[in-house]
Amino acid sequence: MLIIHASRFDTIMPAFFDRLAAAVKQKRTPLVVGVDPRYKSLPADLRQGGEDLEAQAQAFRDFSIGLLDVVAPLVPAVKPQVAFFEQLGWRGMQALSEVVQHAHNLGLLVIADAKRNDIGSTAEGYADGWLGEQSAWQGDALTISPYLGDDSLEPFVRTAEQRDAGLFVLVKTSNPGGKFLQDLTAGDTTIYSKVGKLVESLSNDTAGDCGYGVAGAVVGATYPEQLTELRTRMPHTWFLVPGYGSQGGTAADVAGAFDSSGLGAVVNSSRAIIFAHARDEFAGLDWQAAVEKATQQAIADLATACPLS
Amino acid sequence: MLIIHASRFDTIMPAFFDRLAAAVKQKRTPLVVGVDPRYKSLPADLRQGGEDLEAQAQAFRDFSIGLLDVVAPLVPAVKPQVAFFEQLGWRGMQALSEVVQHAHNLGLLVIADAKRNDIGSTAEGYADGWLGEQSAWQGDALTISPYLGDDSLEPFVRTAEQRDAGLFVLVKTSNPGGKFLQDLTAGDTTIYSKVGKLVESLSNDTAGDCGYGVAGAVVGATYPEQLTELRTRMPHTWFLVPGYGSQGGTAADVAGAFDSSGLGAVVNSSRAIIFAHARDEFAGLDWQAAVEKATQQAIADLATACPLS
Repeated sequence: MLIIHASRFDTIMPAFFDRLAAAVKQKRTPLVVGVDPRYKSLPADLRQGGEDLEAQAQAFRDFSIGLLDVVAPLVPAVKPQVAFFEQLGWRGMQALSEVVQHAHNLGLLVIADAKRNDIGSTAEGYADGWLGEQSAWQGDALTISPYLGDDSLEPFVRTAEQRDAGLFVLVKTSNPGGKFLQDLTAGDTTIYSKVGKLVESLSNDTAGDCGYGVAGAVVGATYPEQLTELRTRMPHTWFLVPGYGSQGGTAADVAGAFDSSGLGAVVNSSRAIIFAHARDEFAGLDWQAAVEKATQQAIADLATACPLS
Repeated sequence: MLIIHASRFDTIMPAFFDRLAAAVKQKRTPLVVGVDPRYKSLPADLRQGGEDLEAQAQAFRDFSIGLLDVVAPLVPAVKPQVAFFEQLGWRGMQALSEVVQHAHNLGLLVIADAKRNDIGSTAEGYADGWLGEQSAWQGDALTISPYLGDDSLEPFVRTAEQRDAGLFVLVKTSNPGGKFLQDLTAGDTTIYSKVGKLVESLSNDTAGDCGYGVAGAVVGATYPEQLTELRTRMPHTWFLVPGYGSQGGTAADVAGAFDSSGLGAVVNSSRAIIFAHARDEFAGLDWQAAVEKATQQAIADLATACPLS
């Protein structure tokens, strides 16, 4: 079933995961670049304006836009990490807003990594702000957290369905401490499996042309066994896979995330790409040239694991 | 043990929960007012500027500042709901920044209700942004979510300790769907008890003069049995209690949240106070007069449940 809605741009637009599937096929890679600026890690020539919040926000804007210009021809989507923009206050958020707009202008899909949630009308506030037709942030997709329970996800699902947007619910995260709650067994199932089952039911109900529904899942590259297990149990759920690259996940570790067509997952890399200028192997390169090399390197590496034809 | 650090304002300042305890005793109420602006619910004369994001942000600013002016002499703290400001994009976040500053100027403590979390250096970004010495948002305390596990809380605890700030970790939330994960039993304990035990250990390690440590807990008024149970099990953990008022929780329901001195919990009320102008009983009053009456009414109601001497 092909689900088409009138979009926020007053044109007919496929559901988010159909757009993502098309972009992955077009760019021939599941790689997503994480836009995670940290002031002290920026190339030196972008840190000339001083360290007050306004100067840092301007540096984030310049860096992120320069980054997007390099990666836009290469990857289907980018994932801005909202925390780093929010760390700079409203000036950082203003910069984020411009970065998202620039990504759209370049034809990139934008996954806002904000890990938001709340209850009732407050959850509606976040959903509308990040994904709404008149949304302030114009995200194509948003990461959300499940601790508040099933009813806290509903406003996000409703909004995402109406606005051709996507969600990625935290299921099995890439950090060691994720096991504290996620790996507990309640009854005959782990907590992450319980959340995964809920997400799969939401996706099964809303599956679009590519076979994937409105709710995706965050599943870390650092737990390849669980990644493979969840792929089998969640056939209608697209995965966002963090933990590849700097966090230790390899291409082999993420191989289990893909379906037989090489779809069903995008794999994020942040530091190894965006701060490639600091890597010994790229010494002497301009920072944007280093980003390009690192992106091409990650694409080639993931191609060994992802069966995109 | 009285813990005193050099504060963000370059003066010696007690730990957050010691400041909160002092403010509760001074104002003689555990009531916290939720600053949850929604455009369509604002008094009509504040909705004259139009509906674009900039006009709505200006209306939120005017409303919130007018609200703070009324409640500042009456309550110890306010709890801005970040979602509603964020819904308006960076202009809303700019308004929030000014609202927080105004609250501090009036001597109010500010609990930023943002339910943030992430892992590693990203969690540090949120902690620094909301609670840091040079923080963009200048919150005194922040609500955070535990799904990502124990290591995701550490950067917040570290920052809160260094900066005399407080945390409120989601433990048992007020919404019906909270039971989806929180009430599951793993081994011999519920998930909310497991999170509660972790929070209590963080607080026990950092208890200040008032007996409460750096990590508080969100425990809903709508589950009074669990509230009483958790009070007993978490003697060093200050509670933030949502769900009183419009969500159905009564003064009797929150009675179990307090220690024998009437400390150990603050109780939030949002809609019933901030949109009091829409309540039949306050018909004909100016909106700020209605807010004042509703605040006094909630204070009197909670006094029947809270044994502050």
